[in-house]
Amino acid sequence: MIETRRPIISLMGRRITLVGFDADDTLWHNMPIFRNAHERFAEMLSEYHDEDWIISRLDQTEIVNLETYGYGIKGFALSMIETAIDLTEGRITGDKIRRIIDLSREMLAAPVDLIEGAEDTVRELGEQYEIALITKGDLFDQEAKLARSGLGDHFDHVHVVSSKDPATYGEVLGRIGVEPSGFAMVGDSLRSDVIPVAEIGGAAFHVPCEGAWSHEQVEPNTIPVGTYVELSTIAELPYRLSEVQG
Amino acid sequence: MIETRRPIISLMGRRITLVGFDADDTLWHNMPIFRNAHERFAEMLSEYHDEDWIISRLDQTEIVNLETYGYGIKGFALSMIETAIDLTEGRITGDKIRRIIDLSREMLAAPVDLIEGAEDTVRELGEQYEIALITKGDLFDQEAKLARSGLGDHFDHVHVVSSKDPATYGEVLGRIGVEPSGFAMVGDSLRSDVIPVAEIGGAAFHVPCEGAWSHEQVEPNTIPVGTYVELSTIAELPYRLSEVQG
Repeated sequence: MIETRRPIISLMGRRITLVGFDADDTLWHNMPIFRNAHERFAEMLSEYHDEDWIISRLDQTEIVNLETYGYGIKGFALSMIETAIDLTEGRITGDKIRRIIDLSREMLAAPVDLIEGAEDTVRELGEQYEIALITKGDLFDQEAKLARSGLGDHFDHVHVVSSKDPATYGEVLGRIGVEPSGFAMVGDSLRSDVIPVAEIGGAAFHVPCEGAWSHEQVEPNTIPVGTYVELSTIAELPYRLSEVQG
Repeated sequence: MIETRRPIISLMGRRITLVGFDADDTLWHNMPIFRNAHERFAEMLSEYHDEDWIISRLDQTEIVNLETYGYGIKGFALSMIETAIDLTEGRITGDKIRRIIDLSREMLAAPVDLIEGAEDTVRELGEQYEIALITKGDLFDQEAKLARSGLGDHFDHVHVVSSKDPATYGEVLGRIGVEPSGFAMVGDSLRSDVIPVAEIGGAAFHVPCEGAWSHEQVEPNTIPVGTYVELSTIAELPYRLSEVQG
């Protein structure tokens, strides 16, 4: 705790006007929905293969398919169906594939389960700053989740983007009309929410999420020390934001 | 021809600063890709049912699923798979479903076939106005098509939206900072590109597309006369734009 509260020298003395929030696993739980789907998928095919092997094959298919489908549940559904066909050498029945489609529909309709402290933090910061939701994924699904979350009215800006790289953040800031030095971003992914924001000169705040998808993981020690702030929970954000502006 | 060149009184005397373009079937052909997929899908299942019946069932499933999946090829792929399972009462084989997935991948990778006159019009108007691509659909797929189209560099703004209603257009204009009276929109859909734009007080230009999806069709005579301009081809747009500003 003391360690994470060390002031981040390179971020001190800023004047933040815009705070960006990641959505999945930052404001609401998302990984548990995918983890549960992986497990149920493996169970459905357990007569054919070992469940761990099924999950690892599904993971592989998902990563290969990111290039074709992008992020989101519909692409994931197609990856599950493809994996089921591959792993059964085409013997999977139509009825089992219908169960995979039903599982995907359940994922799309899942209640939005807010992360503890997220709502208060969004409300509090929304009164002091311009706030933006900046999230990667499927436009339709992310908008639907934002609506179901009840947080939509707090946000001044909502940007669903297809990838989170420095150019994308630059473009979003350009649209809103804020310089990177006036921008803070909070999210659970070092790869998507922290590194690109630090690269363009913004202030990045990392809230780790347990069980994050391996594809999103980056070894923390590959990122220069002192370029971002590590939080234990999102509830720390208001205090730590005021700290870097001290 | 004389009929469509009648000046539109209510749109005269404007000062347009921003021109919005729809994408699918306005700048590039999209319906032929879906029509071809419908036909190939029906052929795949022709041992089970009459092809017209298969296509009408697929259409129904697509429309019902719009609420769950939104627009785009990935949702369409899931609708094809669902229809195939329904129409075969679960007897469809994994190998046939793999062919449906392959068909969807082909759709996603299809070359972007520009509509005649689109490129010149975009280039010409891009020199005189701010221009925006305002398109409905899957974010990832629309961005990929824009990149493949070679038109990306001409656009000052790109907005992929999940639905095209008056509120969405208002939001896009707010972000760009243009009043509706300074906005012109061109597109092939009366429902998505014309009516909502006319409703917020913008100048809408309609370029009909042959074989448009029935779900997007609106009877032209349900729209008040004189609230939008009918074009024969997109190449007429520069001239007709200068006309309403006369």
